[in-house]
Amino acid sequence: MSIQRLHPGPRMSQAVIHGDTVYLAGQVAESAGDTEGQTREILATIDGILAEAGTDKSRILSATVYLTDIAEFAAMNRAWEAWVDPANPPARATVQAQLAAPRYKVEIVVVAAR
Amino acid sequence: MSIQRLHPGPRMSQAVIHGDTVYLAGQVAESAGDTEGQTREILATIDGILAEAGTDKSRILSATVYLTDIAEFAAMNRAWEAWVDPANPPARATVQAQLAAPRYKVEIVVVAAR
Amino acid sequence: MSIQRLHPGPRMSQAVIHGDTVYLAGQVAESAGDTEGQTREILATIDGILAEAGTDKSRILSATVYLTDIAEFAAMNRAWEAWVDPANPPARATVQAQLAAPRYKVEIVVVAAR
Repeated sequence: MSIQRLHPGPRMSQAVIHGDTVYLAGQVAESAGDTEGQTREILATIDGILAEAGTDKSRILSATVYLTDIAEFAAMNRAWEAWVDPANPPARATVQAQLAAPRYKVEIVVVAAR
Repeated sequence: MSIQRLHPGPRMSQAVIHGDTVYLAGQVAESAGDTEGQTREILATIDGILAEAGTDKSRILSATVYLTDIAEFAAMNRAWEAWVDPANPPARATVQAQLAAPRYKVEIVVVAAR
Repeated sequence: MSIQRLHPGPRMSQAVIHGDTVYLAGQVAESAGDTEGQTREILATIDGILAEAGTDKSRILSATVYLTDIAEFAAMNRAWEAWVDPANPPARATVQAQLAAPRYKVEIVVVAAR
């Protein structure tokens, strides 16, 4: 089965397509916003990468959400629920973890079908 | 390839079936038990969701176990080893992470074949 | 689709092959080295398991890196970038998490195609 890589860099690709499954790298926000704002920015980035991979949020299979402060769970969910396709929500897990740079409050990994 | 979602809610589905791969949401226990008891409860929940997806624990491919206290690794493993199919153990990773509610001591994500 | 398990033990397999997707267990280093050295050791272990599964690092789809101290991000990346196939980098996420034994500084999970 063919493998296609989107935005490959020296360390990682932003997405890897294997057959009809798309694996995205963990996405973070570059803005210095709060958790809700960063989540919104990340989800818009994910929309863009999914579009490049020939798919969209209605075909996300699973998501892993890392929050640097689990007390921000409700704030993340406000942005998430405003964005997720209500007819096609993915499987999801959310846990607390510190991330690669202190300005990052959220990181989201998704696996999608296309 | 078709996508089927089990127990979709406003935020997530409890499982998403893509072809013959099944992605489960992170499962937690609703009881206030200890780590071993919560793990047992979660594994029973996973059995139920896998059955709805037309598969069972002998076909789990990978598992990610999040413990709020990694010192409870042995307690989690007691419940895990009593449950796992000894002829068909999945790939697994276990790390410490705080979870969405303080009463949760364990969260388990699995990917299975069907 | 067939399932094949490599190095099954009472708790987990080191890899599970489902069709042409290979799920590896979280790999850790047995040496007491620093983060860069442990990462190098883990990546060599992953090379070995991928070879047994009939594939190699050029076909890794996604990686999750857990660091017990996210301040060691650069040290991990030195070993990672010296190892990763520059023509075929996987999707990747890196977060901080405590691991099953205090001597472990890094744990890496990969999913690969074969």
